[in-house]
Amino acid sequence: MKKMMNQVEDYVAEGIDGFVGANSNVVKRLKDFPIVVRSHPKEGKVALVSGGGSGHEPAHMGYVGEGMLDAAVCGDIFTSPTPDMIYEAIKAVDTGKGVLLIIKNYTGDVMNFEMAMDMAAMDDIKVASVVVNDDVAVEDSTYTAGRRGVAGTVFVHKIAGALAERGADLDTVARVAQRVIDQVRTMGVATTSCIVPAAGKPHFDIADDEIELGVGIHGEPGVSREKMATSREIVNQLLDHILDDIDYKQHDVAVMINGLSGTPLSELCIMNYDVMKRLESESISIYRTFIGEYMTSLDMAGASITLLRLDDDLKELLDAPTKAVAFH
Amino acid sequence: MKKMMNQVEDYVAEGIDGFVGANSNVVKRLKDFPIVVRSHPKEGKVALVSGGGSGHEPAHMGYVGEGMLDAAVCGDIFTSPTPDMIYEAIKAVDTGKGVLLIIKNYTGDVMNFEMAMDMAAMDDIKVASVVVNDDVAVEDSTYTAGRRGVAGTVFVHKIAGALAERGADLDTVARVAQRVIDQVRTMGVATTSCIVPAAGKPHFDIADDEIELGVGIHGEPGVSREKMATSREIVNQLLDHILDDIDYKQHDVAVMINGLSGTPLSELCIMNYDVMKRLESESISIYRTFIGEYMTSLDMAGASITLLRLDDDLKELLDAPTKAVAFH
Repeated sequence: MKKMMNQVEDYVAEGIDGFVGANSNVVKRLKDFPIVVRSHPKEGKVALVSGGGSGHEPAHMGYVGEGMLDAAVCGDIFTSPTPDMIYEAIKAVDTGKGVLLIIKNYTGDVMNFEMAMDMAAMDDIKVASVVVNDDVAVEDSTYTAGRRGVAGTVFVHKIAGALAERGADLDTVARVAQRVIDQVRTMGVATTSCIVPAAGKPHFDIADDEIELGVGIHGEPGVSREKMATSREIVNQLLDHILDDIDYKQHDVAVMINGLSGTPLSELCIMNYDVMKRLESESISIYRTFIGEYMTSLDMAGASITLLRLDDDLKELLDAPTKAVAFH
Repeated sequence: MKKMMNQVEDYVAEGIDGFVGANSNVVKRLKDFPIVVRSHPKEGKVALVSGGGSGHEPAHMGYVGEGMLDAAVCGDIFTSPTPDMIYEAIKAVDTGKGVLLIIKNYTGDVMNFEMAMDMAAMDDIKVASVVVNDDVAVEDSTYTAGRRGVAGTVFVHKIAGALAERGADLDTVARVAQRVIDQVRTMGVATTSCIVPAAGKPHFDIADDEIELGVGIHGEPGVSREKMATSREIVNQLLDHILDDIDYKQHDVAVMINGLSGTPLSELCIMNYDVMKRLESESISIYRTFIGEYMTSLDMAGASITLLRLDDDLKELLDAPTKAVAFH
């Protein structure tokens, strides 16, 4: 294992401090907690809190800032943050208008965020929650009952964040966040395994000529182990699953080509080339495309494709300005 | 080799088309050429042209756009673009105010950009050039006489681009670009080799417990092969070389922690944590920090650290707005 790190037990904390140090105009760390909040909080708006296990950077701290989240709670690597930590984040950002928790659908996350919600309710803080489950690959998986929450979560952050910034109330923000969840689908592929720092060895075995189709962002199994193929073949397989799931025909979509971390931008761009061809042939119109690393899996090579079905309201919220460091 | 690609010979072209397709509000492809230009060119300003071999994405096409470059010429992987291609780019973007070529110091690039300059001069186009050589690792190297041009080039694009956008003349833009070059230093480290698509195997051998200190962005040898160490030790070795080279004491600096591609953002943030500590101990004040993938080396794991010494003029130009896709 060759990781740019110091002590394994400092991996998450030093990463947070290095990120916050570089972006102190946008974010700061909540003293004594692995929680990233805005440096310039805004009063009188619904606050958005997300988070989960670390190892998916820039998720979620890169999405804290004006127009997106108010706080990101950073658990240990691939480990849900504790209810106490989430509760601290809720208390830190609530300004009386209520707090929306945006939870990726993993059993530990759902349980801990819900416990934090109960703790906050005892303080008379209004809290609502949505659970993102955009991964079409598998029903139920390691760590998850139902579908997993993956890169589509970033679109939920963006659109709910823009709406909250405009002063919408908690019910409205939660309802629109759920609409995004209903209309966003993702599927991923891995060519290598990630290495968890504390383990020091690959999370799963994969041969030199194999890919894991439908992999999760913690290296959970996907739908099938296949032989390496061309970008075009892989893209078409991912899109087959996504397009089968909900109807995108005659709709405008936002596309995200999300690198899991080890795959270079040039190859994500080639994948996008193939996505463009396929969607054109399906009469699906691309409104905006995001290519980059939005929801990673430590050092795993691979990528995911996300499609979000848009209407005029969602387009406007997607395009609204944000100061969050990692949304561009 | 598991690369997200179709035919090897289409790697660069499909990557350009995928990038341009995702960012058509900012860039377009010059018909029939591997050249990326602005979608909304501006008349009456000095035009900036850069480029070089591909495989360093987002360099250089990610830096085309208002406030930065006017054109990026994309050669084959790790191969200089031809003089003809560079000449086409110059002709496409000149609006009568002259063109500045920003060249990374590789023998092939310098030769081909200079030949293109001669061709343009015969058309009475005013062309000036600067050569970036920020890599402090080695004097002379594979492909290079003198020091190599690496991630510091992005700061040259940014600052010269902001100045050109304001209407400065060619001599002024070239002079300030040279001042950035004089004040910027970089050094990198690799933990794995890149794989060139056409070769299909690692560019160099490196053991499971080794790093290449001072590696070039084409996998050229650095100053030493070392055993894997902590982020802190590696950062300090890189900074020792950089801080020995020019005097940063009592100056404000811009820092870039540049991922070569295979190293996750979390580890770049840990490196930045260690950079912050070291620069604080050296009484060097950090004005801005950029963490991300700015000048990559295909799928190589590793990173480089860049320090740019700033004055008030350079700060203002660094902070000026840009629409280039990859500068943030």
